[in-house]
Amino acid sequence: MKKTPTKMADGRELIYYDEDESTIRDNPDLRDLPELQVTSEARHDPILDEWVVMASHRQTRIFMPPTNRCPLCATTPDNPTEIPAPDYDVVVFENRFPSLALTALDVDPSVPIDSDLVERRPARGRCEVVVFTSDHDRSFSQLPVERIRSVLDVWADRTADLGAMPGIEQVFPFENCGIEIGVTLTHPHGQIYAYPFVTPKTTRMLRSARRYREKMGRNLFAEVLAAERRLRERVVVENDNWTAFVPSAARWPVDVHLYPHRQMPDLTELNEAERDDFADLYQVVLRKLDALYDKRLPYIAGWHQAPVNSDRDLAYLHLEVFSVQRAADKLKYLAGSESGMAVWINDATPEQIAQMLREAGN
Amino acid sequence: MKKTPTKMADGRELIYYDEDESTIRDNPDLRDLPELQVTSEARHDPILDEWVVMASHRQTRIFMPPTNRCPLCATTPDNPTEIPAPDYDVVVFENRFPSLALTALDVDPSVPIDSDLVERRPARGRCEVVVFTSDHDRSFSQLPVERIRSVLDVWADRTADLGAMPGIEQVFPFENCGIEIGVTLTHPHGQIYAYPFVTPKTTRMLRSARRYREKMGRNLFAEVLAAERRLRERVVVENDNWTAFVPSAARWPVDVHLYPHRQMPDLTELNEAERDDFADLYQVVLRKLDALYDKRLPYIAGWHQAPVNSDRDLAYLHLEVFSVQRAADKLKYLAGSESGMAVWINDATPEQIAQMLREAGN
Repeated sequence: MKKTPTKMADGRELIYYDEDESTIRDNPDLRDLPELQVTSEARHDPILDEWVVMASHRQTRIFMPPTNRCPLCATTPDNPTEIPAPDYDVVVFENRFPSLALTALDVDPSVPIDSDLVERRPARGRCEVVVFTSDHDRSFSQLPVERIRSVLDVWADRTADLGAMPGIEQVFPFENCGIEIGVTLTHPHGQIYAYPFVTPKTTRMLRSARRYREKMGRNLFAEVLAAERRLRERVVVENDNWTAFVPSAARWPVDVHLYPHRQMPDLTELNEAERDDFADLYQVVLRKLDALYDKRLPYIAGWHQAPVNSDRDLAYLHLEVFSVQRAADKLKYLAGSESGMAVWINDATPEQIAQMLREAGN
Repeated sequence: MKKTPTKMADGRELIYYDEDESTIRDNPDLRDLPELQVTSEARHDPILDEWVVMASHRQTRIFMPPTNRCPLCATTPDNPTEIPAPDYDVVVFENRFPSLALTALDVDPSVPIDSDLVERRPARGRCEVVVFTSDHDRSFSQLPVERIRSVLDVWADRTADLGAMPGIEQVFPFENCGIEIGVTLTHPHGQIYAYPFVTPKTTRMLRSARRYREKMGRNLFAEVLAAERRLRERVVVENDNWTAFVPSAARWPVDVHLYPHRQMPDLTELNEAERDDFADLYQVVLRKLDALYDKRLPYIAGWHQAPVNSDRDLAYLHLEVFSVQRAADKLKYLAGSESGMAVWINDATPEQIAQMLREAGN
């Protein structure tokens, strides 16, 4: 793939990733864009021991523009979009309304706060948008495997680039898909959050993995994968290098984890065969999701990667894909038990979910 | 209040709490109800170190019945409901489609699972419904303070009763309010989950509190409350015995915590003045929520209580009330960052939220 970094009118970075190595990218961004002041702040909650991000400049962001105003389509004379070119393969750019930004202003010292209890910092990370195709009406599940492979290469390249930026502690490529979960732009795209701290979820996972290694001498994630491959009951689909299975304590009505068979900290270490095999497997998984209720299933897919600067040998790269759709016409909501006490209640068993997914789309 | 325990047609317990001590409750439940087999199971997720509940018998539960079929209204000749009486004050009964039940069947031993990694148990707890009023169209915010006080007494009484049942480790009274968060019955009611384990959220809070006490010798929750009362910036409303404030690392667009001024493990220890003052304060808070956008705000309200059998001196009773409504016509969704990595992004600062709430309804 050919990588062409460029600058947008307001100084944000935009990078073309082209499947054709001979592609030239020299369309300037001719829009008159105001520069955004990012006021994002991270505060440490002393009771839950977690960082929370406040991004009050985002209140003005765009909500569901009409199709002919899609900011992720290729630029036309009538619609100058975020992407100045007349066509593209995969494009990455800095989010115009980011939750995290390396340029976030210093925190306002006039806010009354007890600094012995609550630590405050500018939320200096980076939020990128990854546009998967120039075709507005396609979905990820409808991409050819070659494009899925390209997107995987882009995620890996972004993981390397973002991990090298100052202060970044974790890189999280993810896709929110479906208006049911609040997606404001339907053009197929994902996001990458480069956090200036290790996330609470990853911290918890690594705590378990550390305890398991101290006690058993082995890698917890590898053991979980080995058990699922041995038992087969919750395996949805597999190939030489990857297995997709429903976790034995699934939280969501649709919940699939995709593990490579080899332990590695992050996407950058995938070899060629593993990349090809991922593209094949992921396409099958996503098409099964769409086949479940014969509609585009809303889902969230997120890559679990090792922190940039710690526990590289303890973490285990994998992708978690889940959906709130619990029947053709019903959604699962996070209500009191989940949102208040972090106790998930699933109306389906992992074994039922796995069987449903194995049968879907066959 | 007069408490009258009764049995429903299928053997579930139903308890009347009457404000008039002379009330007699002797209406039998004449419905022909099948007995429900509860298959709920709790599995311990080895990677996140949390219990997850699977309740597959709940797939058939009722979704939004028409008003004239409301199962929480008083019984009429045309509509024999869950409550056999022709009128009532506050009623508590066992949920017909419970996530947790003391009668949950033994786990199915034929499910292939690696028991060294994943612990399984029947989910033997109890799920109760608390009906706040017989008036179908009222909301909690519209209840008179006397009734709010009665509901508080009921929550306290249930906390005592449920905590004494075998295997119960934590009692969680909560209210889900609003179809926006998936509430299937609009009749004003809340729920109580009596869990057979300490919940992940409470475990995390107590871990922080324990660390703080070891280091500083003081109670973390009391320190947080003292700081907010001293600084005043995030206080929404207060009286002699309670303060409602927006937490300094608020996760939700509307996020209010109500703390009593005295540390105690749970609702049973509130004295008379504290109970009266809570009713006054909570009514003000809920009316402010409704005033924010001049509509009934969807919200979740949940009581954080000490575990039944541990850390009674470390925990600090309080109520957390939060909403996903982030503007008059916009909801906050838990997308990739929140659901995938447990990093909350708030588009408003705690100080903005507190100011908005102080001004609401004045």
